[in-house]
Amino acid sequence: MLTFWYAPGTCALATHLALEYAGAPYEAKRLDFRKGEQRSPEYLRINPKGRVPALVTERGVLTETTALLQYVAQVFPQAGLAPLDDPFALAKMNAFNGYLASTVHVNHAHKLRGYRWVDEGDEAALAAMMKKVPQTMADSFTLIEEQMFQGPWVLGERLSTSDFYLYTLAGWLEGDGVDVQRFPRVADHMRRAEALPAVQKVVAQHKA
Amino acid sequence: MLTFWYAPGTCALATHLALEYAGAPYEAKRLDFRKGEQRSPEYLRINPKGRVPALVTERGVLTETTALLQYVAQVFPQAGLAPLDDPFALAKMNAFNGYLASTVHVNHAHKLRGYRWVDEGDEAALAAMMKKVPQTMADSFTLIEEQMFQGPWVLGERLSTSDFYLYTLAGWLEGDGVDVQRFPRVADHMRRAEALPAVQKVVAQHKA
Ligand SMILES: N[C@@H](CCC(=O)N[C@@H](CS)C(=O)NCC(=O)O)C(=O)O
Ligand SMILES: N[C@@H](CCC(=O)N[C@@H](CS)C(=O)NCC(=O)O)C(=O)O
Repeated sequence: MLTFWYAPGTCALATHLALEYAGAPYEAKRLDFRKGEQRSPEYLRINPKGRVPALVTERGVLTETTALLQYVAQVFPQAGLAPLDDPFALAKMNAFNGYLASTVHVNHAHKLRGYRWVDEGDEAALAAMMKKVPQTMADSFTLIEEQMFQGPWVLGERLSTSDFYLYTLAGWLEGDGVDVQRFPRVADHMRRAEALPAVQKVVAQHKA
Repeated sequence: MLTFWYAPGTCALATHLALEYAGAPYEAKRLDFRKGEQRSPEYLRINPKGRVPALVTERGVLTETTALLQYVAQVFPQAGLAPLDDPFALAKMNAFNGYLASTVHVNHAHKLRGYRWVDEGDEAALAAMMKKVPQTMADSFTLIEEQMFQGPWVLGERLSTSDFYLYTLAGWLEGDGVDVQRFPRVADHMRRAEALPAVQKVVAQHKA
């Protein structure tokens, strides 16, 4: 039995969707970020980074969305969530996921988590960061739409972990002041993902 | 034959070290960032992100350090650069690499690439970002030193791709205003890595 730590509205949704889709045996545990539960001593013992997602396995705790997505695909191979037998195709999946983690997620984080990179009281710098988020997110999604997305799923005909991750970050666009309709293939992808029962179930749980 | 695109002083060093250590057949091609070669039309056709590293393979171009490191380990398995037969251990490696890519590298980028996240002319905001880099880098390396690093190599007894990646980012500390001696295990790791012939060869090439 796996224990999966998440908070609603976060990047943890991607791994949560992969676990659910793969039929993994897991218990989902929710943190309340408004209460700062990610920084409680109990949670820091599980994940000293004070972040979600974190997956508690029999052998220890795993973190980082990119690592977790491939792990779920490897441990539940019958779900077919990664091209495990093809190192090149697997690297394409991991490159897509790596771009989302190191660039797109980071762009988004400058809206509400700017204090990570400037002093907390520097309101002008925080506002400057917040102001550019619509542009950096739109730039990243332009690259995804025009260069990276294969269609109908991220990597082509086969659903993969990248679809859950893209779905999660595309869901941030509206709140970041970017109209997803500017990216027709991404918008179509969102509808396609939302038709999956595993997505409907987990999204409802996050919204509850 | 692989073609590997890099620029000196960048994160591309990590993948370059892995290729060299693994004995991969590759040709290294250098970009001059001072001339903006990463944004030339020729290079953007190879990597539309305008970044390094990029690896040109027979089947297409791969990017993102996290993806490239596992790819090199998979395609040259005799080098033993990843625990390929153990999904949990492999996820530990990818989680370490993912943290470097999505958090540590990003912290560092706020020194000279702050214009990614605020308007280019906003000198006050750029200075505010630059000012916090020593703190964010030191915080990340404290976590690495105290929680993530197994010793003597990152994942324990076995050298892995994470060692090349850690070596690369630890090399940025001095320029970021952080004394690596504050982190004795990381400092020892740097010496250990520098004793590897593959590291000596590639580092000399980057410095040339
Ligand atoms: N690189 C990590 C990032 C994890 C992360 O930043 N999670 C955010 C939610 S999207 C978080 O837990 N933030 C809590 C905080 O900053 O206090 C990953 O991709 O898993
Ligand atoms: N997430 C990418 C980041 C690549 C990246 O940002 N590379 C930097 C060098 S460390 C670059 O090419 N910068 C050129 C520029 O910003 O113009 C990876 O880990 O490979």
